[in-house]
Amino acid sequence: MKTIQAVTYPVHFQKESYKELSKLIEEKNYSTIFILVDENTLEHCYPKFIPNLATDKRIEVIEIESGEINKNLETCTGVWNVLTELEADRKSLLITLGGGVITDLGGFVASCFKRGIDFVNIPTTLLSMVDASVGGKTGVDLGVLKNQIGLFSNPEMVLVDDAYLQTVTPREIRSGTAEIIKYGLTYDIKLFNEIKHNKNLEISDLIFTSINIKNEVVLQDPKENGLRKILNFGHTIGHAIESYFLESEHKNNLTHGEAIAIGMICECFVSAELLNFPKEKLKEVKETIVSIYGKTAILKEDFPSIIDLLKHDKKNVNGQVNFVLLNDYEDYKLDCKVSEDLVIKSIEYYNS
Amino acid sequence: MKTIQAVTYPVHFQKESYKELSKLIEEKNYSTIFILVDENTLEHCYPKFIPNLATDKRIEVIEIESGEINKNLETCTGVWNVLTELEADRKSLLITLGGGVITDLGGFVASCFKRGIDFVNIPTTLLSMVDASVGGKTGVDLGVLKNQIGLFSNPEMVLVDDAYLQTVTPREIRSGTAEIIKYGLTYDIKLFNEIKHNKNLEISDLIFTSINIKNEVVLQDPKENGLRKILNFGHTIGHAIESYFLESEHKNNLTHGEAIAIGMICECFVSAELLNFPKEKLKEVKETIVSIYGKTAILKEDFPSIIDLLKHDKKNVNGQVNFVLLNDYEDYKLDCKVSEDLVIKSIEYYNS
Repeated sequence: MKTIQAVTYPVHFQKESYKELSKLIEEKNYSTIFILVDENTLEHCYPKFIPNLATDKRIEVIEIESGEINKNLETCTGVWNVLTELEADRKSLLITLGGGVITDLGGFVASCFKRGIDFVNIPTTLLSMVDASVGGKTGVDLGVLKNQIGLFSNPEMVLVDDAYLQTVTPREIRSGTAEIIKYGLTYDIKLFNEIKHNKNLEISDLIFTSINIKNEVVLQDPKENGLRKILNFGHTIGHAIESYFLESEHKNNLTHGEAIAIGMICECFVSAELLNFPKEKLKEVKETIVSIYGKTAILKEDFPSIIDLLKHDKKNVNGQVNFVLLNDYEDYKLDCKVSEDLVIKSIEYYNS
Repeated sequence: MKTIQAVTYPVHFQKESYKELSKLIEEKNYSTIFILVDENTLEHCYPKFIPNLATDKRIEVIEIESGEINKNLETCTGVWNVLTELEADRKSLLITLGGGVITDLGGFVASCFKRGIDFVNIPTTLLSMVDASVGGKTGVDLGVLKNQIGLFSNPEMVLVDDAYLQTVTPREIRSGTAEIIKYGLTYDIKLFNEIKHNKNLEISDLIFTSINIKNEVVLQDPKENGLRKILNFGHTIGHAIESYFLESEHKNNLTHGEAIAIGMICECFVSAELLNFPKEKLKEVKETIVSIYGKTAILKEDFPSIIDLLKHDKKNVNGQVNFVLLNDYEDYKLDCKVSEDLVIKSIEYYNS
């Protein structure tokens, strides 16, 4: 599988990638290699990774607790303190080994430590491979507000090895699939059709194609002034639902992908109402997504809090929520204003 | 006074600067203007500033507690929460109005909020005018470790109006003077001589010259790979002493400049020992600095902790402390290794 060249760094694939990592460590002559893991990736991924790491540098493992709930500044402070105690210096390298929490938080931690040390991302979940491996977004949540604190900051390289997917649950694979569906609906409908028909789902190819799409988009618009906003499709309503389920004591958490899947149905509905997105395609999207994710009850009493969370979306300007909508498959419209009323109707459509 | 053009932004001076700020706000069409102050700058500087701000945008003031002790992540989290509550969006502007704590912390807060909003620095102390207004360093302390967490991030513009210096104490003016002495010793000895002879000390000119020097240095080496390290002269031992006094319950805090002044005497001593920096100039530096700052007792029992703090200096690589030393006035040598023993001797020389 070919290397993908992102803005300032390469994404390497499979076994070959470890050679590139060893080469980087050799060339940059890092003082110490820190590896950021959680309890799951320490148990399941670290043993797969470490035999591939050919270096005689000092290696230190830093473990944080897994889960979106720990993707916050307190965890960052903990890691910064450990880095300090272990005498990390500006020539240290931080390798993140894990899902989106580890790669997003780890990238932020590295970028702010002593005004920035190098980092390398090794995503181990489908979601982090297809979504977080390209694009330079790092960050943590502030309360329930996702990625409210963060930076655009690029790793030295990204390693994508789908062998790590053997370590994750089917639910996580479904979570990552939502982002692949998003690339399909907004950019290349073939991806959506492959998932819909589910024939010979060759995961490495889906990953490679998804990263390629994301990379094309990000290269054209790194700072999200235009085109890159399509990557937020499904995420405006989706993030609000995800945050709401995260903060509600009486709700089970949704995975990111489960929330975004709901968000895509809602935003296709809004697109149909405002932009004549074809009704039969709306039906197709809903059926396909529900067949993969099932249905999650969103009650009438949940609506006000979800609407309230929408107001904190990072894309808002002047208190106005900005949506990316679809005229049709692969045909988007940026910066659409949507009334609260229509958002509620879209959730009702999802429920129906 | 002419505008100085820094890497990606201008430094404007005196009354003229407010017109430039109003123009920026107009052009960028910010959604809201947030002004970060502490209780002192709210009382003394804000009333001078606000009549100069010609805009009909929403203005919100965010107040934090003054003092280096509050330059930490907890304060950042507080400001991020307030920004969120006040519905700051990506088109918001943060104006920092204060000394180094406000400008360093405010720049960091802005750069990480929703992956970065614009900020403008208005330094109100001599130290922040001559040191923090150019160079793009933002950050906060981690425990007693100064600026351990931070970023290189540039403001949209910097406003330097020495009218704000009427609001600060003589002790603060002395603190800022230490950085001017540093520019003198490392880059342009005329500045040092002016301060030494103290005749017609025209503060606006000293500020302008100092910012110009810093800007020349930073333009040549923005990421501190070479030349820019001269700005750390006096700061290696100085920071350790500053941190030590900050964390010691039985010591009065030193200002940054007071600590750096001691650091410059110590590092001139080390320069004389290792690099033949002329002994009579060492004497001249010590006498001049002591005549301004007096003497602070650094006891034998303080030495081990100070040495320990040196080990966390951001410039260290592989546990080795890196010093900038002087062959002579205006003639530096980078990346010098200095033994612990010699550091202790240098502090004893200061005490003598």
